[in-house]
Amino acid sequence: MSNIKTGIVMMNLGGPADLDQVGPFLLELFADREIIQLPFQRWLGPYIARRRTPRVKALYAGIGGGSPILRYTEAQGRGMVERLDRLSPETAPHQFYVAFRYVRPKSEDALRAMQADGVRRAVAFTQYPQFSCSTTGSSLNELWRAASRTGLKDAFEWSIIDRWATDDGFIEAMTDTVRDGLAQFQPADRGRVVLLFSAHSLPLDVIDRGDPYPQEIGASVQRVVERLSAPNPYILAYQSDVGPVRWLGPSTERVIRRLGARGEKRVLVVPIAFTSDHIETLSELDREYGEVAHRVGITQFRRAPALNERPRFLDALADLVHRHLRSGEVYGTQYLLRCPGCANPQCRNILNPISGSAPEPRSTRPDPALGARL
Amino acid sequence: MSNIKTGIVMMNLGGPADLDQVGPFLLELFADREIIQLPFQRWLGPYIARRRTPRVKALYAGIGGGSPILRYTEAQGRGMVERLDRLSPETAPHQFYVAFRYVRPKSEDALRAMQADGVRRAVAFTQYPQFSCSTTGSSLNELWRAASRTGLKDAFEWSIIDRWATDDGFIEAMTDTVRDGLAQFQPADRGRVVLLFSAHSLPLDVIDRGDPYPQEIGASVQRVVERLSAPNPYILAYQSDVGPVRWLGPSTERVIRRLGARGEKRVLVVPIAFTSDHIETLSELDREYGEVAHRVGITQFRRAPALNERPRFLDALADLVHRHLRSGEVYGTQYLLRCPGCANPQCRNILNPISGSAPEPRSTRPDPALGARL
Repeated sequence: MSNIKTGIVMMNLGGPADLDQVGPFLLELFADREIIQLPFQRWLGPYIARRRTPRVKALYAGIGGGSPILRYTEAQGRGMVERLDRLSPETAPHQFYVAFRYVRPKSEDALRAMQADGVRRAVAFTQYPQFSCSTTGSSLNELWRAASRTGLKDAFEWSIIDRWATDDGFIEAMTDTVRDGLAQFQPADRGRVVLLFSAHSLPLDVIDRGDPYPQEIGASVQRVVERLSAPNPYILAYQSDVGPVRWLGPSTERVIRRLGARGEKRVLVVPIAFTSDHIETLSELDREYGEVAHRVGITQFRRAPALNERPRFLDALADLVHRHLRSGEVYGTQYLLRCPGCANPQCRNILNPISGSAPEPRSTRPDPALGARL
Repeated sequence: MSNIKTGIVMMNLGGPADLDQVGPFLLELFADREIIQLPFQRWLGPYIARRRTPRVKALYAGIGGGSPILRYTEAQGRGMVERLDRLSPETAPHQFYVAFRYVRPKSEDALRAMQADGVRRAVAFTQYPQFSCSTTGSSLNELWRAASRTGLKDAFEWSIIDRWATDDGFIEAMTDTVRDGLAQFQPADRGRVVLLFSAHSLPLDVIDRGDPYPQEIGASVQRVVERLSAPNPYILAYQSDVGPVRWLGPSTERVIRRLGARGEKRVLVVPIAFTSDHIETLSELDREYGEVAHRVGITQFRRAPALNERPRFLDALADLVHRHLRSGEVYGTQYLLRCPGCANPQCRNILNPISGSAPEPRSTRPDPALGARL
């Protein structure tokens, strides 16, 4: 037992580390009703997953045979705890634990590692800057379920960092990536580059339930543009829609096509909702959309680098957790307000919270099913 | 001729001043393809307008027989130019001219009044804080067309203030309205109030073309919440969808129903995209949604007051124009970037601009129809 004082669970979607994991990853993804709701999901989910597996395998083969997201998350975690040990000796030593949603290390792995390390104080720290029920919400729900499944319901005292869409450190680091992206263009051309902010889309049904994601994405974009203080015009679009339902637009791919048709020659795409490179940046943005851009006459199509191991981003992560620990906050004011249209009684809960400051629960009619399921 | 040095055209939708204007107002509204596109619009537009007229008349009868938007806009204009004359003697005297879209005073009225006053330097100043092609875009296009129709194409030198979603003065004044709204609740209850920001919705087809409105609304909401620095949770929703197409959600009305069903008792609705009271605040929010809230058990449903004649808002308007005049800016960096899916060659143009600083035009393939139509 290494006697870690503060454990920080870094929650993210994750991605298949090698080609053999692609199939199982997609099966779990399309089975998760917290991220996507399909008719006859038990049958249609595996069907879609299996049908997509060969194509997705080929995409991963094209970016080196697997997702780099675990490598980057671990580098981010190392940089973060190293800084935290310096910033906050009273809560040190700190350790990070990766909890991916559909590949290992999963929530169970993180919880068991924390137990082995003697952790008592734990922070559930989402790696999605903007909150959505389909990402951070799903990860948190799974974390509490995993704690129940592993018999570790009472093992840790929890607090939550559930969103940081306009955190100063994050915005500054993200703005640096835009600056680096613009530096890929000739100085004389830089002012003419269109900034195309791209975030993962969501099905409109999720939006209509009241998911806060598009509002927070809009706020992140505005803050980056203001911090950048450059003459470039910008657009926000949404990528990666899949399946038969209608998703939030405008679609990144269609925007690229139309910018090209309009005669734009220089576009810098900025992944505003991702912190690490993964298939959506390396394959979808760089390759797929890069080819689309080329075909429609955008002669200079570039992407701002992902935050990855950028020191300023590691500073931001450490600073976020440091301020959170110092505040004694259990969760932010938005956390307990379930989407108005939410039908999932598991949403917006917390297991065994620290005795800190927390806004009062909003569900004034508690769901009787909840206690039983946790 | 009163020798006004700077004319400021305050552009807004407008509303019928009395019940007789309701029919003509709706006819013009549903005929405007820049705000709503219907199949067989020449036939279906008047049909929908006529069918809705009695109901809308009744709504206006319920709020005193007409829209107060002209009265408020004139009060805002007076407050603004009075302040501008003090702030900026070098561009004084200033005068404001109201240009509504579907009732008088229209663009023609504003232009003729400016000519009579001897104006040469003119600012087209949208009264919609967040840009949408269906509001500010439509107003600007109509302004240029009206200048052409009235033979005043070369009469003025123009610059444009096309959006101010996160302007400090606007955000501060809007935050004051939220504080005033919260003051309507008992001090002990204030922290429990859910803030429901509500903006006018848009058809999804407009969103999918790349309209910047939802991004800017999201940014406004975030800035107000941050400035407010209160423990209240908040949601953004969209109101006033009409007709057979799908609109951007979540719907304000449905959110209210669901908050009630969830057991919420206290809701403060905040109109984030309107600057004056009009039918959507006085009737839709206060009456219609107020009744809905009552029925679903929200015992305290209140609305933050509109900005109207609030001195801090008049300060903000004057400050915005003052900074604009001082900057020598023709328009902001976003103005000339047409929505990627835009099919309207009139969009994002300017007539006879001042010789100031302006980002270069983005439409590198100019539309040959444009010159002829302007």
